[in-house]
Amino acid sequence: MAWTYSQPVKIIFGNNKIESLHEIFTELGLKNGLLVSDPIFVQNNVADKIIDHSKGLLVKVFSDIVPNPTVDNVDACAKLIKENNLEFVVALGGGSSLDCAKAAASVCVTEDSIVPYHNGEKKFPENHLPLIAMPTTAGTGSEVTPVAVLSNPYIGKKAPLASDNFYPLCAIVDPVLTTTTPNFVTASTGLDVLAHALEGFWSIHHQPICDAVAQHSTKLVFKYLLRSYKDPNDIEAKEKMCEASLMAGLAFGLPKTTGPHACSFPLTNLYHLPHGEACAFTLDYFARINAEAENGRLNNFAKEIGFEDAYAMADEIANLKKALNVKTTLSNAGIKDEDIENIAKLSMHPNMLNNPVTMDQESLIKMYESLR
Amino acid sequence: MAWTYSQPVKIIFGNNKIESLHEIFTELGLKNGLLVSDPIFVQNNVADKIIDHSKGLLVKVFSDIVPNPTVDNVDACAKLIKENNLEFVVALGGGSSLDCAKAAASVCVTEDSIVPYHNGEKKFPENHLPLIAMPTTAGTGSEVTPVAVLSNPYIGKKAPLASDNFYPLCAIVDPVLTTTTPNFVTASTGLDVLAHALEGFWSIHHQPICDAVAQHSTKLVFKYLLRSYKDPNDIEAKEKMCEASLMAGLAFGLPKTTGPHACSFPLTNLYHLPHGEACAFTLDYFARINAEAENGRLNNFAKEIGFEDAYAMADEIANLKKALNVKTTLSNAGIKDEDIENIAKLSMHPNMLNNPVTMDQESLIKMYESLR
Ligand SMILES: NC(=O)c1ccc[n+]([C@@H]2O[C@H](COP(=O)([O-])OP(=O)(O)OC[C@H]3O[C@@H](n4cnc5c(N)ncnc54)[C@H](O)[C@@H]3O)[C@@H](O)[C@H]2O)c1
Ligand SMILES: NC(=O)c1ccc[n+]([C@@H]2O[C@H](COP(=O)([O-])OP(=O)(O)OC[C@H]3O[C@@H](n4cnc5c(N)ncnc54)[C@H](O)[C@@H]3O)[C@@H](O)[C@H]2O)c1
Ligand SMILES: [Zn+2]
Ligand SMILES: [Zn+2]
Repeated sequence: MAWTYSQPVKIIFGNNKIESLHEIFTELGLKNGLLVSDPIFVQNNVADKIIDHSKGLLVKVFSDIVPNPTVDNVDACAKLIKENNLEFVVALGGGSSLDCAKAAASVCVTEDSIVPYHNGEKKFPENHLPLIAMPTTAGTGSEVTPVAVLSNPYIGKKAPLASDNFYPLCAIVDPVLTTTTPNFVTASTGLDVLAHALEGFWSIHHQPICDAVAQHSTKLVFKYLLRSYKDPNDIEAKEKMCEASLMAGLAFGLPKTTGPHACSFPLTNLYHLPHGEACAFTLDYFARINAEAENGRLNNFAKEIGFEDAYAMADEIANLKKALNVKTTLSNAGIKDEDIENIAKLSMHPNMLNNPVTMDQESLIKMYESLR
Repeated sequence: MAWTYSQPVKIIFGNNKIESLHEIFTELGLKNGLLVSDPIFVQNNVADKIIDHSKGLLVKVFSDIVPNPTVDNVDACAKLIKENNLEFVVALGGGSSLDCAKAAASVCVTEDSIVPYHNGEKKFPENHLPLIAMPTTAGTGSEVTPVAVLSNPYIGKKAPLASDNFYPLCAIVDPVLTTTTPNFVTASTGLDVLAHALEGFWSIHHQPICDAVAQHSTKLVFKYLLRSYKDPNDIEAKEKMCEASLMAGLAFGLPKTTGPHACSFPLTNLYHLPHGEACAFTLDYFARINAEAENGRLNNFAKEIGFEDAYAMADEIANLKKALNVKTTLSNAGIKDEDIENIAKLSMHPNMLNNPVTMDQESLIKMYESLR
């Protein structure tokens, strides 16, 4: 088996690391930076604290970002960078803020809008602003991936854009930042972690380093997600979920995601399920479908982490979803029988081709019917 | 728990990758390079094949390297680089050739000998020649570590030297290269892998990503080392041991090694045990000593990979050593009772401080006495 691996992001992990921002930026030779922040942190003063801890190295804030960030959010952010000749970008927030900042830090060195890059018409030049990623959800793993997921409302498209430019120079993971996440966000983002770990593992592009971190991450989610959901002040659970999230980011960054993520796009675009909840919607189904693929790789994986087999692990995913109060049936997601054909069609996103068991329109319809 | 991680080496893994050297070097923008090769590959024509596959991008060969390479080997290599204005270095061999090349690629940009750097008197400048590491043993993991182990025969010192300069730009792991390794080298280097994985895990500087790859690596050694030893043409076993070796390199690169490696230095220097055999000499003993440390971390690790506990894993290490025909007692290593005190003293290398259970002269003497 042949594979290549590269993981250029420096990782700094620990509670209250935001207090060391000045030292970290100084060591990296960074100054005159922009803080790209989820609006929530402007409201609750965390953004101010971060500016303070930067001791003058962060000079502007941009926070005009919606969940599932739009191409307009990116263009506005890039404009601010250009107008102020800013020299580096710090992203603070969940996947939405991180992805907006990633795209802005690359497109800002051009005269373009992000749109032609998102459409696949243009490729980024190699230079871009250095990016520091500070995740505030234990979810996307975006702090270590070369991917940004953007929405273009003008053409009704939500799609990932990948570029080596998007690797942050450094990920600063401070689990304390995740203690204010609302419970339903903890649930949804935590399930996104599980989807990344499992899909990175069972992707047809799987490879050994990603396999190892996928397994580590999966164990942590089963052990700590419910605790983190039930008690936002359980700092050990928050820490472990941040660790799981980062390592799941490493797990899927190169192998890419598969069936559940492919199916998530219509569920988010048409039925507004949050990203993690949308991925989890079909995750246990795919765990069963993929159980025996490639000589039972997933069965072995499940056994090694203490389950009877992949089917027992799938049961546990289903139980976890119930305990986290996320939507588990078409009817409670507001999806009607007559919509199934269309959703099945829209689920044939390119990521579906990474699934170890081939899915077609017919098998997807069968799946959605079983989720009624 | 706070930790930092960085792993700048690009990894290219697969059988017969040496056939793609021209493409790989071209993609990396490399030309006018030196092949630093273990002398064995000059004899068996593998070096010639590699020069051929480079299609003119490798222009010289240096192969004046002894096992446990000396400061003189490094200085001679650096001299050749300077005299010929060479622009990159490819290292082909076991840890000995890789470590010689690492040090030479850094010291060659100075007017110095490697000696003051090895002594800790000088620090390298930041610039150095790009290095490509091609391991031919499944052992040291040197292809992904920032460490070179050098011997200075003039002062009787063998010691590791660490520098961020030593990270290869790229590791090219072609398992086919390891099929010619003599059986006793397969045994010794394979046990080195196990020591790296376990010591990286139980080091007091342990951290999650390293933990995950340590566990993956340990599982592979128990499954494939004996097969690789018994049948050099078992290419699946060779592949898996190369994977284990690389991942064990990742496992200990940051947490560093501990008791067994600390003890290996006098065993190699005074009794000429090969590096891996010397590390394995005390490995099962330390697995028992460390079993309950930090709330039984090692016990949990052993259980997760299918053992009853760390003691059962230690038994398996002892069995494996016997099956691999390496030395397991003081008497068959030629160590006399009256030498024990001196070996115990020389085992107090700084790496011993990374061991999760504190060892002193008395506990080390007790250990060596039990290995009579
Ligand atoms: N780049 C990648 O690799 C990658 C991977 C998966 C998903 N994504 C994308 O990331 C986005 C989802 O990111 P997400 O799941 O992290 O959610 P998010 O960033 O959209 O945040 C969700 C909600 O939680 C709030 N929030 C976030 N952190 C908070 C905190 N600490 N305290 C209080 N409120 C907080 C936000 O204000 C928002 O309302 C989607 O667009 C998804 O497609 C990207
Ligand atoms: N840099 C690190 O991170 C690190 C880690 C552990 C050990 N080391 C050091 O590495 C050295 C040991 O390296 P090693 O164990 O790989 O052994 P080695 O490089 O010394 O090689 C051992 C013997 O095997 C032969 N050999 C190697 N590959 C062969 C092949 N494919 N076919 C035929 N013969 C082959 C060599 O000629 C030599 O005689 C020691 O100096 C040790 O201290 C370094
Ligand atoms: Zn996701
Ligand atoms: Zn070693």
